Amino acid sequence: MTDVQPGQQQPGQHRDAQHGDAQHRDRLARAVLTWIAEPGDAQLGALLRQRSPAAVVATLLTGTAAEVAPVIPGLDRAWARWAARLGDAPTGVTLEAWRQDGIRLVCPGDPEWPTQLDALGDERPWGLWVRGQVDLRFACLRSVSMVGTRAATAYGIHVTAELAAALAERGWTVVSGGAFGIDSQAHRGALAAEGITVAVLPSGLDIPYPRSHHDLFEAIAAQGTLVSEHPPGRTPTRPGFLVRNRLIAALSRGTVLVEAAQRSGALNTARHARDQNRPLMALPGPVTSLASAGCHQAIRDWGAVCVTSVHDVLACLTFNPGELADPSRGPVLPRDELNPVSLSVLEAVPARGGRGPARIAVSAGVDFDTVLRCLGGLAAAGFIERCERGWRIRRAAGPEQPP
Amino acid sequence: MTDVQPGQQQPGQHRDAQHGDAQHRDRLARAVLTWIAEPGDAQLGALLRQRSPAAVVATLLTGTAAEVAPVIPGLDRAWARWAARLGDAPTGVTLEAWRQDGIRLVCPGDPEWPTQLDALGDERPWGLWVRGQVDLRFACLRSVSMVGTRAATAYGIHVTAELAAALAERGWTVVSGGAFGIDSQAHRGALAAEGITVAVLPSGLDIPYPRSHHDLFEAIAAQGTLVSEHPPGRTPTRPGFLVRNRLIAALSRGTVLVEAAQRSGALNTARHARDQNRPLMALPGPVTSLASAGCHQAIRDWGAVCVTSVHDVLACLTFNPGELADPSRGPVLPRDELNPVSLSVLEAVPARGGRGPARIAVSAGVDFDTVLRCLGGLAAAGFIERCERGWRIRRAAGPEQPP
Repeated sequence: MTDVQPGQQQPGQHRDAQHGDAQHRDRLARAVLTWIAEPGDAQLGALLRQRSPAAVVATLLTGTAAEVAPVIPGLDRAWARWAARLGDAPTGVTLEAWRQDGIRLVCPGDPEWPTQLDALGDERPWGLWVRGQVDLRFACLRSVSMVGTRAATAYGIHVTAELAAALAERGWTVVSGGAFGIDSQAHRGALAAEGITVAVLPSGLDIPYPRSHHDLFEAIAAQGTLVSEHPPGRTPTRPGFLVRNRLIAALSRGTVLVEAAQRSGALNTARHARDQNRPLMALPGPVTSLASAGCHQAIRDWGAVCVTSVHDVLACLTFNPGELADPSRGPVLPRDELNPVSLSVLEAVPARGGRGPARIAVSAGVDFDTVLRCLGGLAAAGFIERCERGWRIRRAAGPEQPP
Repeated sequence: MTDVQPGQQQPGQHRDAQHGDAQHRDRLARAVLTWIAEPGDAQLGALLRQRSPAAVVATLLTGTAAEVAPVIPGLDRAWARWAARLGDAPTGVTLEAWRQDGIRLVCPGDPEWPTQLDALGDERPWGLWVRGQVDLRFACLRSVSMVGTRAATAYGIHVTAELAAALAERGWTVVSGGAFGIDSQAHRGALAAEGITVAVLPSGLDIPYPRSHHDLFEAIAAQGTLVSEHPPGRTPTRPGFLVRNRLIAALSRGTVLVEAAQRSGALNTARHARDQNRPLMALPGPVTSLASAGCHQAIRDWGAVCVTSVHDVLACLTFNPGELADPSRGPVLPRDELNPVSLSVLEAVPARGGRGPARIAVSAGVDFDTVLRCLGGLAAAGFIERCERGWRIRRAAGPEQPP
């Protein structure tokens, strides 16, 4: 592994020199960990409780499992597995090349890191590969995951797109898995409403799966964010789908199951939402439709809330519906928690009239791509809103009227 | 009012002479009460806590409200209302004429009285007008009410008929209100499966409402029972529909809401089931269908159980599904609680082979109509079953296999 190039530094990442070096080494180490270990690898999760990512990678290069942490069961075999993949692990040069392709690495502690993932404990991702214009953390502050069967019916397709669009119109981000059927309709519904959507993919972001959704993924990258625990180049595996589902549930405030047969993978995501103590919702359908059987099962046996509209979903997610179901009531994050780049972008957004991204970029003194990402994030977090002439500060208003 | 004719005595009703006279007077008095007071009349309910039906009617003929029970609020006006109707109230002769038309009066204390109605307290019916071949109490021992909107969709029609038939096939009685839409489909589904069904009507049984269901009501009378709190000749009133709904809920062990718009009368029945602490179930449907909105509301806000099949319904109604969901496991009522007529009919039913109703009537020494009614009741209560050659004792068997 060579050293990391200066260009690898993330926008919005500010550090002093010494702390910065350690963070820098850990960032590269985390990139290596996503390469050598599967997401959710129990042995690695246990090891990271005891050692920093950089220490783990350094020891892998020189030491043995027995020297490191003999008390972790199964570490021997895991160690051999990781070491075997170490040879072609990414270097600083590789990371810079991926960055040039628009794929950045987001690590725990980064301003863009969705802190709700820390609740996953040992199963927390080693790092997230991200591609897209929107700040991942901001996008997920107010987000709902919508999941369901690949074999969606016309009914499921219809209600998914409607619900996703309605959520997006109210300033909520729609998180899903980019798959055929319900997943892709959820993304499309949010995109159609000019909302933000996050796709959590089971493959590397340079070869997003399924391949036939290429255009959809490009649209998501432009208007939202693609996320993966897998480094570029990695093709999806069967266990990878299931591990991915825990991330969909963990990124969002709650999960809506739209159509799911009784052994659907979407039920797996729903179980994760339940196990993570997040609101689990299910949209009912005809009892004559096998595609809705899993939803009815979730309602009957797992305590999923029966939701039929965007109002039901928001009522389930917000303790104070007046505050959060209404996007015009203001941001969900205090202004002083913004990172400096986002703050300078926010300060360049006018309270009245509206201003386009190019002018905001000049005002804020940051590049155009960064402005686009920050604007999406600030919108998702409730600070700003689109208007005819570009962007403006979101105005406080009375309670939202039901349609 | 003239005295009651001997023919008015109900089958299966046995009494010694003195007690019999009092019971006889109360029976006629209860017929009068159904004539002069609306079902659920609060003042009459309160009055009957203090006085027997016969005493109330006798005092109405001679006394004033103030003399009777001055502490009941609103009794004055109620008294005047009742007295105004007393002139054309039924007499023993009228009752006998109705009996000839197949309409009998079932009163609290009668063997055919469904004792679960006693839980209604002051709102307990003064008496029930009944027409049909099946013993009402037996029919309702193992019964489910199915209610829903008049404006049913093709989906609602289909699933109602399927569920009612499946319940009937498993020996459960289907109770409903005889109305257009879901109600009538519930009856038809049970009839198609050769099961027992009970229609609770909002009008007198000689002019069952709605009139266009004449053929359906004839079929129900032949294979089940028609019930009304209203005496013959009475046309339905708007408040009468709502009061009727509490009876549908109270007669059955649990209520299934199939399709209901958000202000449907069926929701009123559902509320009664909930208020009476009976299991309330709702069958989901497409969220795009307004006809299912009330069902989803009941699931989300009222704690109705989401049911999609007969198995879900029975699991909700039976503490021990192995015992009760399986009709072949034997009766729900001890044999020594049967009235003497039913017991003599039961003793005439063979354990093997099977015997037709005419031969059973001869063996038991009762008339053919009585045999038909008793057989239906004994079947509903789980003692006997139909077979190719007529009726036989129901055989014990292993647990029912799910389809």
